[in-house]
Amino acid sequence: MINDTYARRLQAKSVIRELSEYATRRGEEIGYENVFDYSLGNPSVPTPDKYNEEIIRLHESMEPMALHGYSPSNGIPAVREAIAESLKKRFDLPYEAKHIFPTSGAAGALAHALRAVSKQGDNIIGIAPFFPEYAYYVGDTGAEFRIVPAHFPDFQIDLTALSSLIDEKTAAILINSPNNPSGVIYTNETLSALSDILRKKQAQYGHEIFLISDEPYREIVFDMEKAPYPAAFYDNTLTCYSFSKSLSVPGERIGYVAVAPNAKDADILVAVMAQISRGIGHNCPSSSVQLAVSKVLDLTADISVYKENRDILYDRLVSLGFTVNKPDGTFYIFPKALEEDAAAFCKKALSYDLILVPADNFGAKGYFRMAFCIDTEKVKRSLDAFDRFVEAEYGR
Amino acid sequence: MINDTYARRLQAKSVIRELSEYATRRGEEIGYENVFDYSLGNPSVPTPDKYNEEIIRLHESMEPMALHGYSPSNGIPAVREAIAESLKKRFDLPYEAKHIFPTSGAAGALAHALRAVSKQGDNIIGIAPFFPEYAYYVGDTGAEFRIVPAHFPDFQIDLTALSSLIDEKTAAILINSPNNPSGVIYTNETLSALSDILRKKQAQYGHEIFLISDEPYREIVFDMEKAPYPAAFYDNTLTCYSFSKSLSVPGERIGYVAVAPNAKDADILVAVMAQISRGIGHNCPSSSVQLAVSKVLDLTADISVYKENRDILYDRLVSLGFTVNKPDGTFYIFPKALEEDAAAFCKKALSYDLILVPADNFGAKGYFRMAFCIDTEKVKRSLDAFDRFVEAEYGR
Repeated sequence: MINDTYARRLQAKSVIRELSEYATRRGEEIGYENVFDYSLGNPSVPTPDKYNEEIIRLHESMEPMALHGYSPSNGIPAVREAIAESLKKRFDLPYEAKHIFPTSGAAGALAHALRAVSKQGDNIIGIAPFFPEYAYYVGDTGAEFRIVPAHFPDFQIDLTALSSLIDEKTAAILINSPNNPSGVIYTNETLSALSDILRKKQAQYGHEIFLISDEPYREIVFDMEKAPYPAAFYDNTLTCYSFSKSLSVPGERIGYVAVAPNAKDADILVAVMAQISRGIGHNCPSSSVQLAVSKVLDLTADISVYKENRDILYDRLVSLGFTVNKPDGTFYIFPKALEEDAAAFCKKALSYDLILVPADNFGAKGYFRMAFCIDTEKVKRSLDAFDRFVEAEYGR
Repeated sequence: MINDTYARRLQAKSVIRELSEYATRRGEEIGYENVFDYSLGNPSVPTPDKYNEEIIRLHESMEPMALHGYSPSNGIPAVREAIAESLKKRFDLPYEAKHIFPTSGAAGALAHALRAVSKQGDNIIGIAPFFPEYAYYVGDTGAEFRIVPAHFPDFQIDLTALSSLIDEKTAAILINSPNNPSGVIYTNETLSALSDILRKKQAQYGHEIFLISDEPYREIVFDMEKAPYPAAFYDNTLTCYSFSKSLSVPGERIGYVAVAPNAKDADILVAVMAQISRGIGHNCPSSSVQLAVSKVLDLTADISVYKENRDILYDRLVSLGFTVNKPDGTFYIFPKALEEDAAAFCKKALSYDLILVPADNFGAKGYFRMAFCIDTEKVKRSLDAFDRFVEAEYGR
């Protein structure tokens, strides 16, 4: 018989998906260029030519069985080596190939990292606001998902609240910086204090508490050279990465887990993750995609457009009286709605063809998310709709 | 802390992997051309040019965000449509796009199909001999894996034994035809009788019992036009397919689940499988690989070499006095060892640089498996080693 746990999920509609589908239908009526669709985090800038050229070169020149043959379950050695080298250079940690586990995007990375260091009955703590899919990523491991409420107004981690949630069953803390949906980057101070707490709690409970750091937006950083790197603060860190946003290849499903070189069991954690793959459907990413990505590790798509969009939107939202943090990175902005009920606010916005996502299920009531990975020209045109919406509905 | 269940698996060495690693080391000593490595089921014939050409064409001509953008969680609609059309034409069942769920190979297909129709506490019945990874595919769902002993000497299904193993907690039967390791194809009679039993048991217990049919070797068939198609015999069938063997692209991780059109819940099973993906690490295959494969659905690599290898090996094994079935398909042959202890037999064979896999953990004691997906020239050269081995060790 069909499994009820999964079948029931079909009833729980995804707010983001519903809004995105509404935007598509509305676009058919009035032209998609007239719908200001801020619902989906789908990269808008093209993949670097070099990536496509590399795929073509591999298919023109490489022996088919070497290109398309089984990748070892831990990943292709040369690819793991290249990723380790790149991380070592950028973050000054002694990564080696043995620490790198190529995965099917960040979702695949999280599925393996979470299972590697937790078991049924444990708990894993997430920080609000968070990407709603985390509830499934964690929930389906059998561990309990506990949530630290958001720290207002800056969306850094509420460390006191976090500390009080940790108990002897806590296996891991799941963080995401640069953060979807808030756009916030955790500061050196936040990461340093977080690490102190985790080290103390490890000593108190006599076992490791892993930090699982989800970093698909690591390259999209606006006003600093680079985002503070959590694994540099805390040894027991599993860094989960995806090339989806940095190279604009979300459909290719490619990312990795990087086990921090000084983590407990750092020598065997990748092998353990390969064992997990055997049961959840072997997760090796495509061999040709692994090989191509390994040649463009230090490239990004032209992500400068996201900064321009951020500046335009932030300035207008502030001048319209919104309470909003200036995003440090990502392509999201997370303002407070102009009424308590963010869902009602976003529903009214639809009349102005503004597609905004109420953020109740991101763990921050009363806020909404805008994914500004759309053309700058369209962002500019949306400002007038914002002006009309706010004036008509809220008299500002 | 590291998860013990997975970490313990690192201790349980894989016989196939150990033998394959031995073959590699031995090859470094005496030249790999002198090692008759029958251990691994890695396709040996090149990918069709048309597949590589299609990948190149897509990367040269398609808009990057359309090629590399997120695939819907149920798969790319045009790809699902093309697969449904191809199956409909070949097997005369009314498949539609909604019945097709693209996956990361057969492992991904099985991970989703098994979870969709079973839950913790259920049992799933496999048929010996079976691919040893089945124990992990099934075990990690939380269901119990029960095994029907092999039916000797023909390796069809022992239907009496199967019938007696089914109880009210039986959620699914997992079959594999053409079969790894026996090379046997289940006959019309076997599939028809199996279906009768399942229909009776469904009526007896008042719930569906699904047939999960793992068919990565479907195209590698030697003496008949095509293998009998299980879904044509039994409505509640989930067909799990991989292009790894037919197109020689195992590293690209591409396959699908096809829900039989008359299965219970056929309209929602794909959507349910997409829900399962959310928790086990999103399993969508690469978007470009999905698109390329959809253009070469009715092609295969030049798999005629496997028939030639089968004929050469079968004839010599018979003339040396082995008890062995003539494989109907796949690239495996499954003879009885010349002594009771297949592991001892295979160990002795190593002295003749013959790498044979003892099949105790395939569920058939006293047998060994040869994967003859190697060059025909090498198969021929191995015959002399076989002659010497059998004469010296067993006086034949």
